[in-house]
Amino acid sequence: MRPDFSFEPLTPTAFLRRSAHVFADRVGVIDGDVRFRYDAFFDRCLRFAGALRGLGVDAGDRVAVLAGNTHVLLAAHYAVPFAGATLVALNTRITASDVAYILDHAGVSVLVHGDAYEATAAQAAREARRRVMLVSAGGNADALEALIAGADPLHEPVDDERSLLAINYTSGTTARPKGVMYHHRGAYLQALAMALHMRLDADSVYLWTLPMFHCNGWCFPWAVSAAGATHLCLPKLDANTVWRHLRESGVTHLCAAPTVLTMTAWAPEASRLAQPVHVATGGAPPTPALIERLADLGMQITHLYGLTETYGPSVICDWRSEWDREPLAEQARRKARQGVANVIGEPIRVVDANGDDVPRDAQTMGEIAIRGNNVMLGYYRDTETTERSCPDGWFRTGDLGVMHADGYVELRDRAKDIIISGGENISSVEVEQALTSHSAVLEVAVVAGPDEKWGEVPIAFVTLKEGANASDDELIRHARERLARFKAPKRIVFGPLPKTSTGKVQKNVLRDRLHDA
Amino acid sequence: MRPDFSFEPLTPTAFLRRSAHVFADRVGVIDGDVRFRYDAFFDRCLRFAGALRGLGVDAGDRVAVLAGNTHVLLAAHYAVPFAGATLVALNTRITASDVAYILDHAGVSVLVHGDAYEATAAQAAREARRRVMLVSAGGNADALEALIAGADPLHEPVDDERSLLAINYTSGTTARPKGVMYHHRGAYLQALAMALHMRLDADSVYLWTLPMFHCNGWCFPWAVSAAGATHLCLPKLDANTVWRHLRESGVTHLCAAPTVLTMTAWAPEASRLAQPVHVATGGAPPTPALIERLADLGMQITHLYGLTETYGPSVICDWRSEWDREPLAEQARRKARQGVANVIGEPIRVVDANGDDVPRDAQTMGEIAIRGNNVMLGYYRDTETTERSCPDGWFRTGDLGVMHADGYVELRDRAKDIIISGGENISSVEVEQALTSHSAVLEVAVVAGPDEKWGEVPIAFVTLKEGANASDDELIRHARERLARFKAPKRIVFGPLPKTSTGKVQKNVLRDRLHDA
Repeated sequence: MRPDFSFEPLTPTAFLRRSAHVFADRVGVIDGDVRFRYDAFFDRCLRFAGALRGLGVDAGDRVAVLAGNTHVLLAAHYAVPFAGATLVALNTRITASDVAYILDHAGVSVLVHGDAYEATAAQAAREARRRVMLVSAGGNADALEALIAGADPLHEPVDDERSLLAINYTSGTTARPKGVMYHHRGAYLQALAMALHMRLDADSVYLWTLPMFHCNGWCFPWAVSAAGATHLCLPKLDANTVWRHLRESGVTHLCAAPTVLTMTAWAPEASRLAQPVHVATGGAPPTPALIERLADLGMQITHLYGLTETYGPSVICDWRSEWDREPLAEQARRKARQGVANVIGEPIRVVDANGDDVPRDAQTMGEIAIRGNNVMLGYYRDTETTERSCPDGWFRTGDLGVMHADGYVELRDRAKDIIISGGENISSVEVEQALTSHSAVLEVAVVAGPDEKWGEVPIAFVTLKEGANASDDELIRHARERLARFKAPKRIVFGPLPKTSTGKVQKNVLRDRLHDA
Repeated sequence: MRPDFSFEPLTPTAFLRRSAHVFADRVGVIDGDVRFRYDAFFDRCLRFAGALRGLGVDAGDRVAVLAGNTHVLLAAHYAVPFAGATLVALNTRITASDVAYILDHAGVSVLVHGDAYEATAAQAAREARRRVMLVSAGGNADALEALIAGADPLHEPVDDERSLLAINYTSGTTARPKGVMYHHRGAYLQALAMALHMRLDADSVYLWTLPMFHCNGWCFPWAVSAAGATHLCLPKLDANTVWRHLRESGVTHLCAAPTVLTMTAWAPEASRLAQPVHVATGGAPPTPALIERLADLGMQITHLYGLTETYGPSVICDWRSEWDREPLAEQARRKARQGVANVIGEPIRVVDANGDDVPRDAQTMGEIAIRGNNVMLGYYRDTETTERSCPDGWFRTGDLGVMHADGYVELRDRAKDIIISGGENISSVEVEQALTSHSAVLEVAVVAGPDEKWGEVPIAFVTLKEGANASDDELIRHARERLARFKAPKRIVFGPLPKTSTGKVQKNVLRDRLHDA
């Protein structure tokens, strides 16, 4: 037996090499006025790797990138592993001190930054304890471009498919960010799963609305290249630009949090599209109103679920064509469920405190537990947290949910967002869904407010649709008609919701407001 | 670092487990009047595994199946690995002595056979040196069904993803059949690649025209289940049944050798279909006439290439939408190329005798060389042949081809089919393509005939379309207008072509006829 011709370590960078071969002269990447054919982009990534080597980056080193959804950050998803190094894609909205913390924690030696992030990068480098080399990309003095132009191609082989490809830092609302370790094998399989579920092909045009720094853009930097599709970069997210691309650039696919989709769907520019667009969303279930609105605009939505720890969406609300014939409300109810493991995942579970499966009754809450090839290796330099997250070989997500009779999981809440009122658990998500069914409501976040009698009570923060009106009494009445009495919000606070860089509502900020008040 | 939640051995049987969960109550398998929901089929496969254990099959044993494209053979693709054993799917058209040879060579302990193959199985068991237990499936005395009904479910875990999943015996025209070893990882990745390239989804209906015993049906027993699509079994291949299914069963996909497609496309029943059907073909390039005819019938064709040693199609003529706008002749020319590595493959090569790449000039012939996760582990109990097939880490296919400037490979000939005339190499495929471009020609095979002056000369065996007429002079003239003079056939022999069970023309039989004459 000679295994040498029948084994090749899995790495998602192989997808770019293939598309550089098969789709050589097709446009692989568009970023404003810049366009790269697939062969040129591959060559550029190899030289980018050579440039990193020239800066002293060795195999096993960590290279960070602080940039929007540009061709530079996309290229880094290939160039850094081509240099044998590990990519740390930084959240562009965190403070310089947080960046400094990550540079130190990850042991980063080179930080590539978009020219718009010059000040943050410089301050972070000053604050960091270790010496970090800064390389500016874009703008007039494009240091990266000069380095790439002068570099030789470099393509380090991947010897171990479970070696470190990337470290993605969680946003860390309560503690310091944690470094989630991705390996080549996991990203390879997750990218194939995304390409398959989203039906990407060589004629697809993928609009980069989802931040690439967020779980490596759910592995789409590799999935889109695997399909030979076109990456349409979007350095800055605004509804106007999104609609211009939707209308003029032949976009077929995009991913985004429901808040971003809400902003897009009710933007003044919104109107029905000529081509069908396939949208994937996660982070919160799409509301019936959003699903209906997107359908009117010509967009079909897939609901996904996952965490940084699971390479993004390890769970998909896999859809059946027979459900298309159901009433819209029923479809929305089904689509609000997070679903089942994606095609390369192991079956997901909902477990009780002992690690046993809860009944499939759509009622008994438990913690969602995941294992498989698209679960992180662990937290970087944090064995204790890694072990705590996995008491028995199943990663505990910290999300509470129920299991439906058909094996689909439905999220009820983040463990920390559950409201405990008079000893009863209230799912903040359930209250939010009751309120969003009111036609005047654009967005809602429900959190626990302190209460002398009940311990905690649900308080709702509500944003109304432009031009719409509803009183707090009316909304509370609306919720009471749909929920057990103790679950209805005790108070409504109107106004915009604070959000993270990835569009998630910051419930911790809302809770702080209530406690400070 | 706790790898235990982030690693799961890859096995294609996981796709059935997933579909039994996600698509539980959907029909997964149809075989005549028999229908199985996905959950029932999964349970059946587990009990089939339990039944095998009851017969004494232990992990690591070999179980053979001799059956047409029935639900029994499909289930064996899961049940045998669920029992921890290795599947040997037997060619239904080989002789009892060949079956006996394989039973001994593979060390088979249990042979499951369709009731139609009772006589062959019994004779093979008598001729085999080892004791082989026979289990009959189907018919009135369905022993397998009784065993399954009485068995408990069994699901042996796969500890090593590179352990033996299947042994597929080559047809062996010149020597004894060779046992090609497949591992779980290779079949898993190849199945994902097939699902992705063929765009299978949960609404697809896959018609089983390709024999499952042939490279495990190109891994479609697992690919179709991965997509949650419907397997439409076809125990016996005839144009009438194929057309009935195409018209009445909502077929969306099928795979077949060009000879089978030719038989189908020009059958009296053929007429334009209501739904589009995606067809994949391999073994020989589809002719322009076939491509055009299928398009008229509503079938879109993808040309693939591979060998038993590469899990079926490791190479795909990946298509670009811009080519759709070219004249049909140009499209056919492109589609006749075998293409590029599929999405999970390593780049393929065309190498000279020293193992160096030939120039990308579409002219210089070399041997096609392949490596990657979808190359066999080796030949079972034949280290010598395994090592000969892989002098340098690249599997030598025995197929001669050229590399086009765009990196697409085009096959010129099997090494053994090349015609050496007066010291010049003549590709039999090139001569065949020249002749099939004549409107009266249905099929052609060109082989070397002995010649005193030139050593060898090309002789063409031709089948004309029903009702069509052409003289040998006319066909030779037609070829001369398209080929260098020395490449034109020296003689035309009219009549039907001898074929293997998988629809390939048996050139060795034709050569023997010429030498015996």
